[in-house]
Amino acid sequence: MVDLTELGKQVTATSRRGGGREARRRERAAPVACFPTLVRNIPVYDILPAEAIEHIHLESCRILEDVGIDFRDDEAAAMWQAAGADVQGYRVRIDRGLLMELVGKVPSSYTMHARNPARTVEVGGKNAIFVPMYGAPYVRDLDNVRRYGTLEDLRNFHKLAFMAPSLHSTSSIICEPMDIAVPHRHLEIVYSALKHSDKPFMGIVTSRERAEDTMHMAGLAFGHDFVRDNTVLTSVVNCNSPLVWDATMLDALKVYAAHNQPCLLSPFALCGASTPASTIGAIAQVNAEALAGLAFTQLVRPGSPQVYGQFMVTIDMKTGAPMGGAPEAAHMTLVMGALARKYNLAFRTSGFHVGSKLNDAQAGYESNMLMHAAILSGANYIWHVAGWLEAGLACGYSKFATDAEQLEGWYKYAQGVSLDDLQEAMAAVREVGPGGHYLGTQHTLEHFENAFFMPRIMDFNSFEQWSAEGEKDMDARGREQAKAMLAAYEEPRLDEAVDEALRDFIARRRRELPSQVS
Amino acid sequence: MVDLTELGKQVTATSRRGGGREARRRERAAPVACFPTLVRNIPVYDILPAEAIEHIHLESCRILEDVGIDFRDDEAAAMWQAAGADVQGYRVRIDRGLLMELVGKVPSSYTMHARNPARTVEVGGKNAIFVPMYGAPYVRDLDNVRRYGTLEDLRNFHKLAFMAPSLHSTSSIICEPMDIAVPHRHLEIVYSALKHSDKPFMGIVTSRERAEDTMHMAGLAFGHDFVRDNTVLTSVVNCNSPLVWDATMLDALKVYAAHNQPCLLSPFALCGASTPASTIGAIAQVNAEALAGLAFTQLVRPGSPQVYGQFMVTIDMKTGAPMGGAPEAAHMTLVMGALARKYNLAFRTSGFHVGSKLNDAQAGYESNMLMHAAILSGANYIWHVAGWLEAGLACGYSKFATDAEQLEGWYKYAQGVSLDDLQEAMAAVREVGPGGHYLGTQHTLEHFENAFFMPRIMDFNSFEQWSAEGEKDMDARGREQAKAMLAAYEEPRLDEAVDEALRDFIARRRRELPSQVS
Repeated sequence: MVDLTELGKQVTATSRRGGGREARRRERAAPVACFPTLVRNIPVYDILPAEAIEHIHLESCRILEDVGIDFRDDEAAAMWQAAGADVQGYRVRIDRGLLMELVGKVPSSYTMHARNPARTVEVGGKNAIFVPMYGAPYVRDLDNVRRYGTLEDLRNFHKLAFMAPSLHSTSSIICEPMDIAVPHRHLEIVYSALKHSDKPFMGIVTSRERAEDTMHMAGLAFGHDFVRDNTVLTSVVNCNSPLVWDATMLDALKVYAAHNQPCLLSPFALCGASTPASTIGAIAQVNAEALAGLAFTQLVRPGSPQVYGQFMVTIDMKTGAPMGGAPEAAHMTLVMGALARKYNLAFRTSGFHVGSKLNDAQAGYESNMLMHAAILSGANYIWHVAGWLEAGLACGYSKFATDAEQLEGWYKYAQGVSLDDLQEAMAAVREVGPGGHYLGTQHTLEHFENAFFMPRIMDFNSFEQWSAEGEKDMDARGREQAKAMLAAYEEPRLDEAVDEALRDFIARRRRELPSQVS
Repeated sequence: MVDLTELGKQVTATSRRGGGREARRRERAAPVACFPTLVRNIPVYDILPAEAIEHIHLESCRILEDVGIDFRDDEAAAMWQAAGADVQGYRVRIDRGLLMELVGKVPSSYTMHARNPARTVEVGGKNAIFVPMYGAPYVRDLDNVRRYGTLEDLRNFHKLAFMAPSLHSTSSIICEPMDIAVPHRHLEIVYSALKHSDKPFMGIVTSRERAEDTMHMAGLAFGHDFVRDNTVLTSVVNCNSPLVWDATMLDALKVYAAHNQPCLLSPFALCGASTPASTIGAIAQVNAEALAGLAFTQLVRPGSPQVYGQFMVTIDMKTGAPMGGAPEAAHMTLVMGALARKYNLAFRTSGFHVGSKLNDAQAGYESNMLMHAAILSGANYIWHVAGWLEAGLACGYSKFATDAEQLEGWYKYAQGVSLDDLQEAMAAVREVGPGGHYLGTQHTLEHFENAFFMPRIMDFNSFEQWSAEGEKDMDARGREQAKAMLAAYEEPRLDEAVDEALRDFIARRRRELPSQVS
């Protein structure tokens, strides 16, 4: 079992300068550390029997054979035709033999390199990583005001992602830097992710050109040769449900797959609107979409690592509004995880993607309804696990901090129940006996620091103490923690030559690219 | 699958007078209904392999054989001696043969009758019930003020328990009525539970006499003959961890077991203080305590129904404060559930028992961390699932309302994933095809009301609408819901003669009993 406290201390000790009260304050605020890839030591949870999973698989195959799926890109359609699919315009019908042959070429796991080798992670099998949210136009800021995101906010979130030991990735567009012109944004986003953190990150997918710029910048940081074959980032391409892979996504996908950089092939489904109003029906459709996308990646580069993904939220059928932590979303996560295992694929799901506007009780209920399912689904790439509010419209500083802490608990949860110290504990039972207490025993003294989860933002103090400290709710405490972390932030070293090369590249591209969307 | 909307409508239709706008308002506020016993249609989750469960069992047996356990009651000690245990004073050492012989007599499930037969429930096997919290000295009231509980509060909580369709029991001492003299409290508590709700309830355990009064009142409501053999309530007796069953608890236990009324044999463990600072060590000890208690019940009345229980919270090892939704508590729930299955016993755990002072994000995170484990543990008596705050020191009106709604989601979750409409859904996929949408399809029109969970307090409206409605957090919306439910409350019919008999009994006992604790 990973000793979280010990781990935090070690990394803090090596990454901190000086000492004294100020150092201790910073240490409390933000133990700079990064947990290793989470290796699940608990079984997955099969909510459906294997026959049902097979049944869903067959229906998904039928969809792709009979209804077909659109690949709305000439090159992609031609590639499918060359591979032997039935192609009419953009409509591609793929028989199950071809489909599964291609899907079978996808590796079941991959190594994702970080610019700091200590942050390199494994994705697939029993390995899982926690990745912050992506794509919010709004932030709920340190003063609890909702406003458009800025580059300053994005940098802050990259700093927080770096500092939170439970997060394995910097993500990329945690919030949209709305103060940067759209054609330049991707440059600033990738630069900020590389500059402010040394964890793996995510690529830009909004055009072929931006994906190429991302790869170029990754090449400047890691070496161009290195990034031709070695995975340094993971990006997301969403199927446009129902059953459409559009040109923009396919363009980005082609760039990344050619470089052996995986994508999350993740149908984004508003279940009830872009899928049937049926849990099982939505699953069968989304599975078909993900499989078709994965199969296509293997036409681009056979053997390239890819991730079988899903992002399924139910909608409120009265208003059409997307929900978050609903029981059906948990069901979908678990069933999609079982399908991923059937196909022997790395699996992406989401963790804390809530509909709540605030970091309030609703956000908490939703978050852990979903995360428990994510963990038990055997997911490998657990995304949207920090900051997410309002069905993804906003990233909250407080939510980011409280989520990161919850992840420490989930990390412990996924380590499972150890029987290692059972004999020692039984010796303590014999020592204490009926009617005693354990607080002073040798066993307790040896284990108290690591026996149980000890969060910092969650408050378990007495009512009186909590009251004396201002009766702050978790939202307020989360904001304080985010502020403290940012105050304690120290930039990880980025090679000066690399930094300069990145800045030069950005300056050149800013000159070349228009400053407005034409 | 239970159609929650349909169920709500039916029961509303038969229990409501009149119609029009007022009736609709009340219906929205509180669809008076009660879901049937939850029949789990999903597998349990075995977090540990069977060998590990067996290993724990053997360690628990060794504790009872070698260390022993105190039954601090002369009669109980004598009963153990007569049964063949090794008894030295109050210290009882029970060999595993005797232990398992007695535990084997406990029925694996039972029927708990409600005074309204439509509310009668099953406990055990795949059946589960949701039971509100118990024992809070404080309330967090409808104005969000924390103060001592009163009889008025208790009545309100009994009304809310009656109105919430997801709750299967009225509990009893949801909050302590601090304005009633201690010696009289139990009478008012039981009367309020019987008067304001027609669901099953819980007995009083603070003395033999109070347990007898409870049984007498139950007899007045159900018939004295009926309650000699038929279960109409379930009570809790806590082991005083480590390894002490005290006289008060044993006295109550003897009264209830003699009447075939089950108790939850539930060691109340502050893990790290009253157990070793070790998840697995705490489990082995608590299992020993529960088994010894259960075995004792079968000395009182062989074959009497009983529930194997646990209430284990970890403590913050720096301050000693009890926690709530920590990962270890989820682990303990899952492992204790596996032990209950090994013994073929009905299993009690807790659902939403949080440490948070407020109905805030912490409360939400904690609640669903725990509830997911409770559901997957196969628990049959899922207690403390409405109102619980501050490690049980306070019952919150808002928390009560929001918890009750969350339970509707968990009820759906535990129904599992149905494959029933897969073919229908696939027909919709063929009809809509790539690039379409499902909002107007026949399938959607037929299924939209029940396809997905549709909560009322959770808010998934657009930011703009939510903002126009006052930007209320879930805590505020929960208080509003509680108020609306209380405004819409209509008392279930209690036979006038029964009511009079109960009131006469209370008046007599109030005269007989002192008005202060001597």
